[in-house]
Amino acid sequence: MKYPGGIRRKQTIKNSSNSVHVNNLMNRGMSLEEDINITNTFYLEMNRANIHKKPTPIQIVNVHYPKRSAAVITEAYFQRSSTTDYNGVYKGKYIDFEVKETKNKTLFPLANIHEHQMAHMESIHHHGGITFIIIRFTVHDENYLIPFEKISSIWKDQKNGAKSITYENIKEIGYSIPFSYQARVDYLAIVDALYFSNGGIKNE
Amino acid sequence: MKYPGGIRRKQTIKNSSNSVHVNNLMNRGMSLEEDINITNTFYLEMNRANIHKKPTPIQIVNVHYPKRSAAVITEAYFQRSSTTDYNGVYKGKYIDFEVKETKNKTLFPLANIHEHQMAHMESIHHHGGITFIIIRFTVHDENYLIPFEKISSIWKDQKNGAKSITYENIKEIGYSIPFSYQARVDYLAIVDALYFSNGGIKNE
Repeated sequence: MKYPGGIRRKQTIKNSSNSVHVNNLMNRGMSLEEDINITNTFYLEMNRANIHKKPTPIQIVNVHYPKRSAAVITEAYFQRSSTTDYNGVYKGKYIDFEVKETKNKTLFPLANIHEHQMAHMESIHHHGGITFIIIRFTVHDENYLIPFEKISSIWKDQKNGAKSITYENIKEIGYSIPFSYQARVDYLAIVDALYFSNGGIKNE
Repeated sequence: MKYPGGIRRKQTIKNSSNSVHVNNLMNRGMSLEEDINITNTFYLEMNRANIHKKPTPIQIVNVHYPKRSAAVITEAYFQRSSTTDYNGVYKGKYIDFEVKETKNKTLFPLANIHEHQMAHMESIHHHGGITFIIIRFTVHDENYLIPFEKISSIWKDQKNGAKSITYENIKEIGYSIPFSYQARVDYLAIVDALYFSNGGIKNE
């Protein structure tokens, strides 16, 4: 049985100047995504949770149906997802999150989180799901889980001119995610502490 | 704000013999899918649940990047999803289901449900999610919700030669889904009765 978490990393540039061979949608240089996918595959194999990356939505314009072989999509366009990157089930609860990576050393630009993603997370929160953002500071090689409840008010502050969250502030409102060999970004360790223990955030 | 549930139904056949214009992935003549998508949009707008169709996974082989316009996928193939069609959150619980349609009057062929889908639903069930199949008998214009727990043992019976479930049996093990104008296939009415009331199936 194959799960989509187990992705391949192959990507080769073709000889033509602006044509690129890609083996997988998820492969756009986002190593946080790759680490999360590996983590999710590990969680699935360990029977700990069932969480997947949602496929990128694609608008298909033209499909060719050759005789005796598979349909070929010959014209299609990437669409912006109206939701978040990942969802699934953990201990009976619905889990839904977005992952973001920044190369900035000192701040995370709020424009990285889109309005429709915040609206989606707000809806998930309303329906009693667990929802958060994982932010990687590539330069510091650190990953933080920030619960929706904490990012929401800061994000709304953009109306008052806020353009970013400082790295220092992320360290205050976020939770540093431990790294391990197989659970590369072991975010369920944080989810356990925040949503499934007495001292944690109550979700509803 | 646009949600993927609100899909367009446009599909036009091009003049060329084996080339088809499609506006949307989901549009493959499955009107049950369309009805479920409309239902989910209604649930979302009524703030009742947040449930979406997962995009069909596509393997991208070639992408062209024209100057000053959007990237064009010029070669791609449909991939079989390793999970189910729909998932989301309802009353804090994770919901995950597959929809199937048959034109057969008297039976539902078990081969319509793939092994990887059963394995996925078994995992969801194990993790405390709510999981089921919705089957439409097109000829009878009837939709049934069949909990995973009930379909599972029958599906496994294929090893003993079972090839289908009769329509009569579906009526016994399934729950007829009410129809209404906006909640076209109002499956949450059945979910409420089965999983959120005292007399219903206990999930876990």
